[in-house]
Amino acid sequence: MRIEVLTLFPEMFQIFDTSIMGRAKEKGLFTLNPVNIRDFSKDKHKKVDDYPYGGGAGLVMAVQPIEDALREVKKVNSGPVIFLGPRGKTFTQEMARELAKKEELIFLCGHYEGIDERLYDVIDEEISLGDFVLTGGEMAAIPILDSILRLREGVLGTDDSSVEESFSENLLEYPQYTRPENYEGRPVPEILLSGHHENIRKWRRYMMLRVTREKRPDLFARHILTKEDRKLLIKYDPEWEKEETSE
Amino acid sequence: MRIEVLTLFPEMFQIFDTSIMGRAKEKGLFTLNPVNIRDFSKDKHKKVDDYPYGGGAGLVMAVQPIEDALREVKKVNSGPVIFLGPRGKTFTQEMARELAKKEELIFLCGHYEGIDERLYDVIDEEISLGDFVLTGGEMAAIPILDSILRLREGVLGTDDSSVEESFSENLLEYPQYTRPENYEGRPVPEILLSGHHENIRKWRRYMMLRVTREKRPDLFARHILTKEDRKLLIKYDPEWEKEETSE
Repeated sequence: MRIEVLTLFPEMFQIFDTSIMGRAKEKGLFTLNPVNIRDFSKDKHKKVDDYPYGGGAGLVMAVQPIEDALREVKKVNSGPVIFLGPRGKTFTQEMARELAKKEELIFLCGHYEGIDERLYDVIDEEISLGDFVLTGGEMAAIPILDSILRLREGVLGTDDSSVEESFSENLLEYPQYTRPENYEGRPVPEILLSGHHENIRKWRRYMMLRVTREKRPDLFARHILTKEDRKLLIKYDPEWEKEETSE
Repeated sequence: MRIEVLTLFPEMFQIFDTSIMGRAKEKGLFTLNPVNIRDFSKDKHKKVDDYPYGGGAGLVMAVQPIEDALREVKKVNSGPVIFLGPRGKTFTQEMARELAKKEELIFLCGHYEGIDERLYDVIDEEISLGDFVLTGGEMAAIPILDSILRLREGVLGTDDSSVEESFSENLLEYPQYTRPENYEGRPVPEILLSGHHENIRKWRRYMMLRVTREKRPDLFARHILTKEDRKLLIKYDPEWEKEETSE
């Protein structure tokens, strides 16, 4: 996968030289090139932003440097231009999966006061990280890139890619425990030590349902209960049985 | 503001040495100390994770290194322990505002396979960045810290802090334009060049309503229309008038 990121802060993307992503990048599983928008400014002071027409505080990122940078980048990358901005659709795992299928992507990071509206002419898609304000698009591009890249083959290694994933079914993960069996008086649930695989599987499935229902009722509402899910809930959850019966 | 972050990848937080945050940090407006969980492992190989009880792929972060790191951190930081995890409430601007009021915060970053469930005993709050999977809590901690820190006095500088903010009223920003007046045949809307401040204010207000209604109907539904909002919508938006009348 080839990624170019138009940004005023190319050094921020050094974060992809560390940890899991650093290893995947070294293996050549993706290339990530930050492109400094400032390098394309035709202003003698290399200015990239200016006061807004109509007045108001803050500076707005100008059209020229970004459009020129984009023209250059498009010579080597034919992916969609994705702008990280507040008007975009909120990023989800479904969007991560779609974007991970592409071989080329271009990201455009603005800063928080905004970009010149005319730049929307060259933007293919706008994505928002969530309903909160950031100092710049970089802060959204970084986790979004992470969640896309981890879905690419080989990035997590062969073992890890088989881990069941949150949100794939609108259910949160079941609780996990590792050694020691008893930590300062807090034991691991007995069932996990039983060696009875089928019972463990059922307990985990039930815990996924229970944790999701408790912590994220909105996700739970979107989950389509399987026949087994209903059985488990009726068996272990007297509250659920009441609700079900009253329907 | 004092922040300690428990992480396996302290180098990732060097991102706060760049850009706006780098300047604010240099001015002493906040301290951000990444604490390497691995340094607290009592294992001879400095292991911090292990296989899950009950089987399954992936490794689970163990209790001991994290609890010991936390015990040490709590000697200097009495803030709440915030775990970045999928079970948490989805981060919003409202949460950023609440957290920005505190003087001390402790963040705990897990990695994507999960942490030992017993660690929930020492976690005060769990926050999720959104409904997508990341390689580690660091990728969530970074934008969340950015959105909290930018609300602290002085971080954005005096000028910028007065910029009206997205989400403060459940409305998106109005379109912004900067020089040149005409870029490759694409002009700035005439009203912004009129010098008529009151008309510009009204146009911008109307555009905030229009952009939000179009791009984020869910936000628009939560916005409480002012008397002026209704007037503007009726005046400029024939569609709106029809909807209003039909109610």
